[in-house]
Amino acid sequence: MIEETSPQNIDRRIQMAVEAFRFLKNTTIHERAEFMNAVADQIEALGEELLTAAHSETSLPLARLTGEKARTTGQWRSYAKAVAAGIYTEARIDLPQPEKQKGDIRKYNVGIGPVVIFGASNFPFAFSTAGGDTASAIGAGCPVIIKAHPAHPQTSQIMADAIATVVSAFGWPEGIFSHITGTSYEIGAYLTQHPDIRAIAFTGSFNGGKALFDIASRRENPVPVFAEMGSINPVFAFQQLLETKAETLAKEYSTSLTLGVGQFCTNPGVLIALRGKPLDRFINTLKDEIQKIAPANMLHKGIFENFEKNKNIALKQPDVEIIASGHTEAEGIVGNASVIKTNAETFLNNPVLSEEVFGPFGIVVVCETEEELMEIARQLKGQLTITIAATNEDVRDNSTLINVLKDKCGRLLFNGMPTGVEVVYGMQHGGPFPSTTDSRFTSVGPDAVKRFVRPISFQNWPDEFLPKELKNENPLQINRMVDGTMNSESLKLQTT
Amino acid sequence: MIEETSPQNIDRRIQMAVEAFRFLKNTTIHERAEFMNAVADQIEALGEELLTAAHSETSLPLARLTGEKARTTGQWRSYAKAVAAGIYTEARIDLPQPEKQKGDIRKYNVGIGPVVIFGASNFPFAFSTAGGDTASAIGAGCPVIIKAHPAHPQTSQIMADAIATVVSAFGWPEGIFSHITGTSYEIGAYLTQHPDIRAIAFTGSFNGGKALFDIASRRENPVPVFAEMGSINPVFAFQQLLETKAETLAKEYSTSLTLGVGQFCTNPGVLIALRGKPLDRFINTLKDEIQKIAPANMLHKGIFENFEKNKNIALKQPDVEIIASGHTEAEGIVGNASVIKTNAETFLNNPVLSEEVFGPFGIVVVCETEEELMEIARQLKGQLTITIAATNEDVRDNSTLINVLKDKCGRLLFNGMPTGVEVVYGMQHGGPFPSTTDSRFTSVGPDAVKRFVRPISFQNWPDEFLPKELKNENPLQINRMVDGTMNSESLKLQTT
Repeated sequence: MIEETSPQNIDRRIQMAVEAFRFLKNTTIHERAEFMNAVADQIEALGEELLTAAHSETSLPLARLTGEKARTTGQWRSYAKAVAAGIYTEARIDLPQPEKQKGDIRKYNVGIGPVVIFGASNFPFAFSTAGGDTASAIGAGCPVIIKAHPAHPQTSQIMADAIATVVSAFGWPEGIFSHITGTSYEIGAYLTQHPDIRAIAFTGSFNGGKALFDIASRRENPVPVFAEMGSINPVFAFQQLLETKAETLAKEYSTSLTLGVGQFCTNPGVLIALRGKPLDRFINTLKDEIQKIAPANMLHKGIFENFEKNKNIALKQPDVEIIASGHTEAEGIVGNASVIKTNAETFLNNPVLSEEVFGPFGIVVVCETEEELMEIARQLKGQLTITIAATNEDVRDNSTLINVLKDKCGRLLFNGMPTGVEVVYGMQHGGPFPSTTDSRFTSVGPDAVKRFVRPISFQNWPDEFLPKELKNENPLQINRMVDGTMNSESLKLQTT
Repeated sequence: MIEETSPQNIDRRIQMAVEAFRFLKNTTIHERAEFMNAVADQIEALGEELLTAAHSETSLPLARLTGEKARTTGQWRSYAKAVAAGIYTEARIDLPQPEKQKGDIRKYNVGIGPVVIFGASNFPFAFSTAGGDTASAIGAGCPVIIKAHPAHPQTSQIMADAIATVVSAFGWPEGIFSHITGTSYEIGAYLTQHPDIRAIAFTGSFNGGKALFDIASRRENPVPVFAEMGSINPVFAFQQLLETKAETLAKEYSTSLTLGVGQFCTNPGVLIALRGKPLDRFINTLKDEIQKIAPANMLHKGIFENFEKNKNIALKQPDVEIIASGHTEAEGIVGNASVIKTNAETFLNNPVLSEEVFGPFGIVVVCETEEELMEIARQLKGQLTITIAATNEDVRDNSTLINVLKDKCGRLLFNGMPTGVEVVYGMQHGGPFPSTTDSRFTSVGPDAVKRFVRPISFQNWPDEFLPKELKNENPLQINRMVDGTMNSESLKLQTT
């Protein structure tokens, strides 16, 4: 039974977060990085209890959870390193130039304020209570109020306790991190509407993310919402590649489509190609591969039921045909993989087929002409990823099409598959609407910190009162842009 | 008579912008910088015609317009320099590390797409048709659709022609820049609702900016709105400073409050201080200074009428008292300066007195206690600027109060006055709501370019197909983060 945090307790926690913000925004980047590394250590030290709880609550295999735990501590550590390097401080100093400029103007980024984060169900560690959103908000200097995902309450509590332990060990205000539980829609709306909350982060369904976006943008003081709402992550498979590698591609596609029972936001839900013998070979191999997939439980009953419902809606559309399906004898909440086939005209004219079906479900769209390929590209909504399965020659032959596709995604792959989102600076996990609510930011990689900062300028302040980041001496030894040039030097000025 | 661009013509221009975007996003940073410098040259070469038109349309003195013209070309040139340096490209390259990471992942920023910009009335050059928003959008690689401000149509047309001349001279698609004219509310709403528009920039009133924000966030595909909606830019004057410099501060405040007939978004509309003899001295000097101000015409009849209306609303509130006013014999659309006085309790409880009165109008709020000062700070809405008129000792004595004020503004000044927004990297022109709709961005300084870019990642692409910004060779010689370290080197890799 999940306890519903009362509005009074939520108000109290948010008030504590407001007060903790006054503390946290005045910590240095090194202090926050030290805190983040300590959280990583604390999570790393969590033993069997964490893995057992997560396994029992999510059905995810222990091997996967062990990997996800390492990813989670890796996120805290790599974001800490980026924060300590001052990358998100973006210090700018413009010194007085009597002939051109009147003032001494210095700018740096501070935390935007208390942030509400909604944990995701499909990554109980990496995108949930102690996930990348929490790490990036704290790295930015923002207290976090977590709305725990109700599908893994015990896991969430263990992670929340780990963070609280570090807060306490550091002697930092308790309000830096709060753990709110509940299952109602109202509790999420209440958090999002609260005037002292300055930003929202969410990973989940389109309906959930869009509802939060609407609430936040209709507040008296609107605030940004970073909702990662998934997508169908199209794969465009081109002729030469199919001719030489239809079978390899089918194997890769099948593996990616069914990885983690298809429960990834980068799951490649649609593959688009020209009709022909190579595509037939692809489909034949895909059929065999899908049948080999061992059945497995989905994350929870709600996800399983939605998967079944949405899959069956897709299957009942006119002019679609099942080309591959997994073990039909499976029972319980087993996500049974299916792939259907349709033609471009049907795909273009039936919006149902462009909806994400969260789980191991794919559509192969068979085009008659290159114009149909282009029309699909043109009509495509915003996506987290698009994959180009192609030879170099294919790319040269389809440059106009690929140029169109660049406007539709956050990450463009050349071969390979989109599942497996690397936690690196180069990662963009966030695409044009409706895949996310704000394509200008990523929720994976250290750059995720950027979402939660805003700049403040100081004009003509005596050195003594400037934040460390902007002092002449540069005590934090960070890179700063001084009169347009990057350096990490001390300024040799007479201090006032 | 201002021609109303028809919806058909708007649609056609937006379609041209969509096509031009495919061209513009593939130009290099150096090509765009060259274009921007050419626009600066073209504007610089505009002669008497421009100044005469602007003077007759805005009543702004020729000296001010001459300065604003120089500022405008300076904006194009300094933003061009920043664009050419690749600052907003933010290239990140993560090379494959077989043990840790599967892919070769590279990210850089591209333009977000066609941008609609609403010209402001109070800066006919620097914040209008060829202003900083236009320069930063084009620098980001985004075609611009200008909605001309109806108060200076001829000026706007001259600037639009100058930009079009450069587009043509470069042989670039005409759709890179469009000039839309009209006076109706509907035309702004139509542009903001258009599904192919990817961002909106606006400088003007709260009602105007908030209406655009609401339209854009309720679109089927919501897009960001950067609305700079002004504020009351409080000055907190502390005891020691008042004791030693009451008269100097009164002169500075009077000059700033009435500069340009008070028609700046950074106009210091309220000054807050503790009751006492020093404040009496400030008020006495202020009275003399305000009376010395030569009367001058406001920008246009609408602004004058709003000024008179809002000033008279403020004057009629209970417990306010006029302490200074300018030449009362003035006629026509002359903005007659006024300063009123009230107590903290009245100011805190009457929201009318926290509304911006656009023009030369100020309120002195007399506090009885330091608690009242703090309560005003706590209740203050988001501001573009806050000014601390203080000695170093005052700052030490009021550090808690000043810490609260840091959360309420984009720029914090130590003495001096907030009018005069320097166009430098260190400038933050944008504060918490309601001063702007997005405190994370500035509309002044080269960093204004950031508003109009989004990142895209390329995973495992052969070097041949990567954008120049991400090629191994680094042909643009920009600073890039390679495996976490900034450098401008070529990558010595075997290209695939």
